[in-house]
Amino acid sequence: MNQYYSYTHFTKDINTLLGQLVSQEFESIIGVARGGLTMAHAVAEGLKIRNVQTLRTELYDETTKRDEISLYGACDFKNIQKVLVVDDIADSGETLDVVLSYLKKEFPEVLFSSATLFYKKSSIYEPDFWINEADSWIDFFWEKDFL
Amino acid sequence: MNQYYSYTHFTKDINTLLGQLVSQEFESIIGVARGGLTMAHAVAEGLKIRNVQTLRTELYDETTKRDEISLYGACDFKNIQKVLVVDDIADSGETLDVVLSYLKKEFPEVLFSSATLFYKKSSIYEPDFWINEADSWIDFFWEKDFL
Repeated sequence: MNQYYSYTHFTKDINTLLGQLVSQEFESIIGVARGGLTMAHAVAEGLKIRNVQTLRTELYDETTKRDEISLYGACDFKNIQKVLVVDDIADSGETLDVVLSYLKKEFPEVLFSSATLFYKKSSIYEPDFWINEADSWIDFFWEKDFL
Repeated sequence: MNQYYSYTHFTKDINTLLGQLVSQEFESIIGVARGGLTMAHAVAEGLKIRNVQTLRTELYDETTKRDEISLYGACDFKNIQKVLVVDDIADSGETLDVVLSYLKKEFPEVLFSSATLFYKKSSIYEPDFWINEADSWIDFFWEKDFL
């Protein structure tokens, strides 16, 4: 059964999350497109962080037997030491696993943390901060309210 | 007097905008951070466009007499011809003017259009698509709901 995740629920969750993040002194937010974009905006506003950047992933399963995630976008962290990566959900966890592995390898001098609204126990990657455990398919409001 | 711009109002406006955009066959959405991020997400979902990228601007007025807008972020438009740039408001219009000038110069083979939720008549730049005329200060929900 699908669970509709409303803007009202999102507002409550983001404010809970902000309570946990406010002491962390992040200097930049990376939103993983598309799912993490609205969340990146909300967290950045709540933490008063102007430096918001994005990465996007694409899943290719046409030519290879194994799914392969391709990563697009370029980040810059000049004078930045602590970065928070946000996405809507750690489902299989593969997206965040790829994104965080890439960022840590590419920017070894930067400290990266991650946050999601939902976390599934079967995910191969557990975000540093997450709010809800996902036990059904989530219909996020940004996927349902704009047609 | 400030005007609170709610998520409900946003939903209505985005759906009006999507009615105007759906025939345009955009292939990529550029959100101007931070103000355009939630809108970029909504428009991309509504138009089923997976290619969402962002640029961010910073206003420097410390060292120069005139305000100067610096632009950050790198876009790629491989195999892409039509791109929509979105931001929350064309207020002075300087941000969108700088962003569109940069994109058109950097990617002369790509066709760029722009859309905002609000447009102020005094703006130096008029977006191709806009929904509301702004005649007071707008408190966007993403600036007010997350504290």
